[in-house]
Amino acid sequence: MFEIEVKGKIDNKEEIIKKLKSLNFSFIEKKIQEDIYFNGIDRDFKKTDEALRIRDDNGIYFLTYKGPKIDKISKSREEIEVKVEDKEKLRKILKKLGFKESLTIKKIREIYKKDNITVCIDYIENLGYFIEVEKETNKYDEKEVKQLLDLLKDLGVKQLITKSYLEMVAEYEEKK
Amino acid sequence: MFEIEVKGKIDNKEEIIKKLKSLNFSFIEKKIQEDIYFNGIDRDFKKTDEALRIRDDNGIYFLTYKGPKIDKISKSREEIEVKVEDKEKLRKILKKLGFKESLTIKKIREIYKKDNITVCIDYIENLGYFIEVEKETNKYDEKEVKQLLDLLKDLGVKQLITKSYLEMVAEYEEKK
Repeated sequence: MFEIEVKGKIDNKEEIIKKLKSLNFSFIEKKIQEDIYFNGIDRDFKKTDEALRIRDDNGIYFLTYKGPKIDKISKSREEIEVKVEDKEKLRKILKKLGFKESLTIKKIREIYKKDNITVCIDYIENLGYFIEVEKETNKYDEKEVKQLLDLLKDLGVKQLITKSYLEMVAEYEEKK
Repeated sequence: MFEIEVKGKIDNKEEIIKKLKSLNFSFIEKKIQEDIYFNGIDRDFKKTDEALRIRDDNGIYFLTYKGPKIDKISKSREEIEVKVEDKEKLRKILKKLGFKESLTIKKIREIYKKDNITVCIDYIENLGYFIEVEKETNKYDEKEVKQLLDLLKDLGVKQLITKSYLEMVAEYEEKK
């Protein structure tokens, strides 16, 4: 399963939400997510463009592996995710195995949906507001990326972002 | 949480079960377990005496890390275990991270309990019958090990084993 995803920076959140509603997107939920990222044991995930993460999604926990991005415009990549029962036990196991915690990202996420497209309006601690548009697909296809980029255009998003929140938070932490 | 555990080889399964019942142990359940073991990324778990395992316990899945054994007589070691929703996804994540599958152990386990002591009568594919006596405790204590060894003695178990099933199956595979 691939996740096709494009992302942009926004500073006019309310306007975007108004446009989403006019395009018949429905509000699904608002939630708090905390993502704990780990670095690799035998390789630097920053260099290999991979990610290992424990997600706390409003008290439901997931272990996620993300493979390298497949192209340069979209953020598409392989993603494998499994639900786990306990966050702290999983965190301990990963540390025992030799993974080092790199960063934690705190996010308030508002989710909108239409058909098989999901739009997230994210507030990231220290970074501000972003929009992510995504679609799950069995095989990767350029046309699907274009469809998502067109949607961002229609919403008036001008500043595209290919960096992950992880990369941006890392840069913020380095500059601090 | 520590798992205090002692183990022996048996070839008189029915006799042991009779003795367990006369000591007021209750039969709890019989089940099939499949354990998939992985080797470390930056170190050989055979040398460091650690283990990383996915357990399929009659269709319920767990990720388990086991630390090195604490003493030479008992098999006591730190154990951290977390329930996961999907075996194949977890298996894929571990492989992507760089863990290599080492061996799979298939076991038919009969469980008996009295108070806080658990006795497992295990049939291990290719190896035969074994008995494991265990107790969970917050801190490691020599006296608790002795209590379990005394129980093995009372049951008439003569051949103590400190090797793990993993080590024994590995030896079996090498000799084959």
